[in-house]
Amino acid sequence: MESNNHPLYPLRHSLAHVLAQAVLEVRPSAKLAFGPPIDTGCYYDFLFESPLTPDDFEDLEKRMRRIIAEKQPFERSELPCGEAVQMLEQSAQPFKVEYCKELASEGETSIGFYKNGPFVDMCAGPHVEHTGKIPADCFKIDSLAGAYWRGSEKNPQLTRIYCLAFGNRKELEGFLEQRKLAQERDHRKLGKELELFIISDKVGPGLPLWTPNGTAIREALESFAKETEARAGYVRVATPHLAKEDLYVQSGHLAMYKDSMYPAMELDGESRYYLKPMNCPHHHQIYNHRPRSYRELPLRFAEYGTVYRYEASGTLSGLLRVRSICQNDAHIYCTLNQLKDELAATVTMCLDYYKKFRFQNIKVRYSTHDPERKDKYEDNPELWAFSEKIVKEVIESCGVDFFLGQGEAAFYGPKIDFQATSVIGREESISTTQLDFAQPLRFDLSYVGEDGERHRPFVVHRAPLGAHERFIAFLIEHFGGAFPTWMAPTQAMIIPVKPTVEQYAKELASTLRQHLIRTEIDLSDNSFNKKIREAVTHKIPNIVIIGEREAEQGTITLRRYCVKEQVTLARDAFVERMNRILHDRIMDNFADVEI
Amino acid sequence: MESNNHPLYPLRHSLAHVLAQAVLEVRPSAKLAFGPPIDTGCYYDFLFESPLTPDDFEDLEKRMRRIIAEKQPFERSELPCGEAVQMLEQSAQPFKVEYCKELASEGETSIGFYKNGPFVDMCAGPHVEHTGKIPADCFKIDSLAGAYWRGSEKNPQLTRIYCLAFGNRKELEGFLEQRKLAQERDHRKLGKELELFIISDKVGPGLPLWTPNGTAIREALESFAKETEARAGYVRVATPHLAKEDLYVQSGHLAMYKDSMYPAMELDGESRYYLKPMNCPHHHQIYNHRPRSYRELPLRFAEYGTVYRYEASGTLSGLLRVRSICQNDAHIYCTLNQLKDELAATVTMCLDYYKKFRFQNIKVRYSTHDPERKDKYEDNPELWAFSEKIVKEVIESCGVDFFLGQGEAAFYGPKIDFQATSVIGREESISTTQLDFAQPLRFDLSYVGEDGERHRPFVVHRAPLGAHERFIAFLIEHFGGAFPTWMAPTQAMIIPVKPTVEQYAKELASTLRQHLIRTEIDLSDNSFNKKIREAVTHKIPNIVIIGEREAEQGTITLRRYCVKEQVTLARDAFVERMNRILHDRIMDNFADVEI
Repeated sequence: MESNNHPLYPLRHSLAHVLAQAVLEVRPSAKLAFGPPIDTGCYYDFLFESPLTPDDFEDLEKRMRRIIAEKQPFERSELPCGEAVQMLEQSAQPFKVEYCKELASEGETSIGFYKNGPFVDMCAGPHVEHTGKIPADCFKIDSLAGAYWRGSEKNPQLTRIYCLAFGNRKELEGFLEQRKLAQERDHRKLGKELELFIISDKVGPGLPLWTPNGTAIREALESFAKETEARAGYVRVATPHLAKEDLYVQSGHLAMYKDSMYPAMELDGESRYYLKPMNCPHHHQIYNHRPRSYRELPLRFAEYGTVYRYEASGTLSGLLRVRSICQNDAHIYCTLNQLKDELAATVTMCLDYYKKFRFQNIKVRYSTHDPERKDKYEDNPELWAFSEKIVKEVIESCGVDFFLGQGEAAFYGPKIDFQATSVIGREESISTTQLDFAQPLRFDLSYVGEDGERHRPFVVHRAPLGAHERFIAFLIEHFGGAFPTWMAPTQAMIIPVKPTVEQYAKELASTLRQHLIRTEIDLSDNSFNKKIREAVTHKIPNIVIIGEREAEQGTITLRRYCVKEQVTLARDAFVERMNRILHDRIMDNFADVEI
Repeated sequence: MESNNHPLYPLRHSLAHVLAQAVLEVRPSAKLAFGPPIDTGCYYDFLFESPLTPDDFEDLEKRMRRIIAEKQPFERSELPCGEAVQMLEQSAQPFKVEYCKELASEGETSIGFYKNGPFVDMCAGPHVEHTGKIPADCFKIDSLAGAYWRGSEKNPQLTRIYCLAFGNRKELEGFLEQRKLAQERDHRKLGKELELFIISDKVGPGLPLWTPNGTAIREALESFAKETEARAGYVRVATPHLAKEDLYVQSGHLAMYKDSMYPAMELDGESRYYLKPMNCPHHHQIYNHRPRSYRELPLRFAEYGTVYRYEASGTLSGLLRVRSICQNDAHIYCTLNQLKDELAATVTMCLDYYKKFRFQNIKVRYSTHDPERKDKYEDNPELWAFSEKIVKEVIESCGVDFFLGQGEAAFYGPKIDFQATSVIGREESISTTQLDFAQPLRFDLSYVGEDGERHRPFVVHRAPLGAHERFIAFLIEHFGGAFPTWMAPTQAMIIPVKPTVEQYAKELASTLRQHLIRTEIDLSDNSFNKKIREAVTHKIPNIVIIGEREAEQGTITLRRYCVKEQVTLARDAFVERMNRILHDRIMDNFADVEI
């Protein structure tokens, strides 16, 4: 329900009354429940003897527009509770009677009503002056849904009528367009259509299996991350997916995080093992397996590591909420003097990635701890103060705008979270960078400094590309499934125009595959136009048309996804072009990019 | 204990008596236990009042050589059990008494004895004619070990003296050399020295953590496999590490394999989940998520997939026996007509890999089922007969020698296993290729054929590079830790000869790193010779020496691991050479290879 100081609140609230008035005209015996404004308009819940259908929407909208044209004034009145109940009983509105009695039992002495035209509803307001203040061209009855009276399935089931309402026509149209885009681009829908991943009942909810198409995207991201990280001085590690209980007692995860962990497995009749909730304790074991010198620092251990979250089964959805998460993880072990540079380099790496992917509206959240929540955070006021100061200075030095997320820190230190809004309006946490002062203490991590003494390193946790599951869900919606060539499951689709050129087409396919370019060739009996349509449906970035002229001249004709002009290129020039796109990971999937 | 028809059996057996005789000369009160021949010589177990040490070996060997020189004949005699016990009691040999009584209680009526010189032992023989038949120059007292009387820790602890013995001096020396090599190359020793992996008590036994150096090797192998598989028409998938019980009921793993699986985890208060024992059931879910057409086959799903084996904790060792295994796995779904080609292509891929790695003495085992073991194998005589025939034909058509492994098949079909012997003489199963007729039935896998009807595909399981753990253990020993450049954790070590050339050295390091060549630069205070020694100790394949001449002329001096001659190259030529080695994965780590 929308805050009642939203500028559209009175308009949307008033529209709910207009909707109810129109509904009562066609269903006089309908019983009214609640009808509040919401952030896209309003709804009203009814109990019907004979149900409504979407076919009734046009008639209802006509009636609503008539009521608006009548400029019925909204008039407030008040009745003592007893009289209010009596009046509502007379008008045969049992839900209103029940609610009115409840308010009385809670100590209300009088009940407010609003009347417009023949329609009266118990209501706290506020409303617009008269129905004519509602713009007649920027609302729309949207949909029907089932709802229980007061949300309880023990109560009667009602029909909810949703109505969209905005301040002007443009906003309404913008909303409808955005929603259509969101539905078309929903990663669960595209994931199915483009065969990117599946959920199998036999494997379990929240445990996606990546099909060849989806795995191609994962691998493209991983190789990009690995190369970027290698250039940035990271080294890679690989750690098992489980460990003994002890490790997570020491890390604090069992104390702080047990509800989100999988149940234990008992091995050897004595040791309890857990699937790992995070990779850091494993990385600390590698750090700690021998003494470290300041000469080795900063040490940056990277791993596309899988962690396990025991999310409630009801909350699992597509790739966005899963039980097994493959993270673009790394832990940086550094000295105090190196800390700011390492944090800043991480922030810069994030920004470089998001610029490459063309994410819009990146927001940075600076997450601090809540000193009142001793149960949720390490109890070390001095190190919290110090760490939060450092992180804030780094964000400021990077020149990015940020907002504060008080009480959003990790239990071991403050965070810098990046949030992006996808083209369909979904805002997502894309990545997190965390300064950790607590685990170095818990694991007694140390290094021998230039002075020959033992010192405590700091740890930075970072995952610029988040986790495959969430990041690829975001990318699917961001690209609308039309991935740039370097990430696309099928990078080139060859369409021979007639059987006589199939040999040439096959040789071309073979050449491209030798260059490890994921190439398909359409040898089906489909018509040329159907082949093109199929390739477009599968959002393949490069359609390579081979006709007689191409076969004779050793050329190809390239039609790029969503680009109208097609070009003819020498065969070698095309191979070279594809190699360049792949090597440089060029974002070629946009009409505005020259390649 | 060695088979008593081994040609060296009587010699080694006789040597055990000579050893015991010599020991009794210096420890007359020693109590004798058992002293059998083994495949490297013999041992004898004693209970001592005052222990022996390796310092006694020389004296004992001298005494043994004297006994051999005396040519004492071995004389057999026999005593009724009662007299035998009496005689052994008189000579105060309680272990022999116990064993003699045991034999009597099992129905033996008489006991055999062998006497040579003053030494008598109860013994079944056979022996050489006299001690002079033992060649005096091809035995060696090897070591001492603790052992319990009859192997039970409830019994007294004895001292076991191991003695090596071969048919001639050359064999003994060959054995000692091989063993020295094996000790030097033991993957656990090199794994530690070269920091390739660690085992952490906190994580658990059998769960290695791969450090940056070991992970570099894993990644090199994975990228090689991925490229090879992509060229061979494989596509990649990625599947979670666990699944519901149902999946493994359907696959048959829970019925056939439960003892090797981890315990279940109960989720959602109802479903039992298991860590996956194999990847195949997951891949079948991807195959089965929609109808398949014959046009799609063969479908080859590859994954470096992790599987879990609940090995007994006492059997875990280094990388060779672990509880979490990352396999070079793939499953090929094909029609009957495609089956032979697919199997043959897999065998060829294996052979190509092993030739590249220069594995010697590859043996191929053709593993069939045991029709008597209905508990161990799918009960389908017709499909077993058919599948075993096909697999045999494929092996024969590939022209490799093979031997039969009756009763070594997987529960779902016959196998082709590749076994290699490493330079240290360790024979390992390197890979397996399995024809599976059973799981397609269990999972109701199908495709629509050209005839429009549903058909059953065959499945081929294959893992030419085995699992990372076992394969890398093998490679460590095979290469003695000196990995070829394309796999080496550090690919180039730059050694500046004096501070004035450090700038040039750093620029070179930066250039190499831009090419993703794993480069270190030794800026320590160590002497030039110590720097070289360190690089050699770490078995770094390319040592790049930068002196004043190199810095002035824009060259580098390259010293390759174990290659005496060093060469001076233009800087760009060196970078180009490294790129070529990496791109083509040239096995450059052998003195005999020109690059």
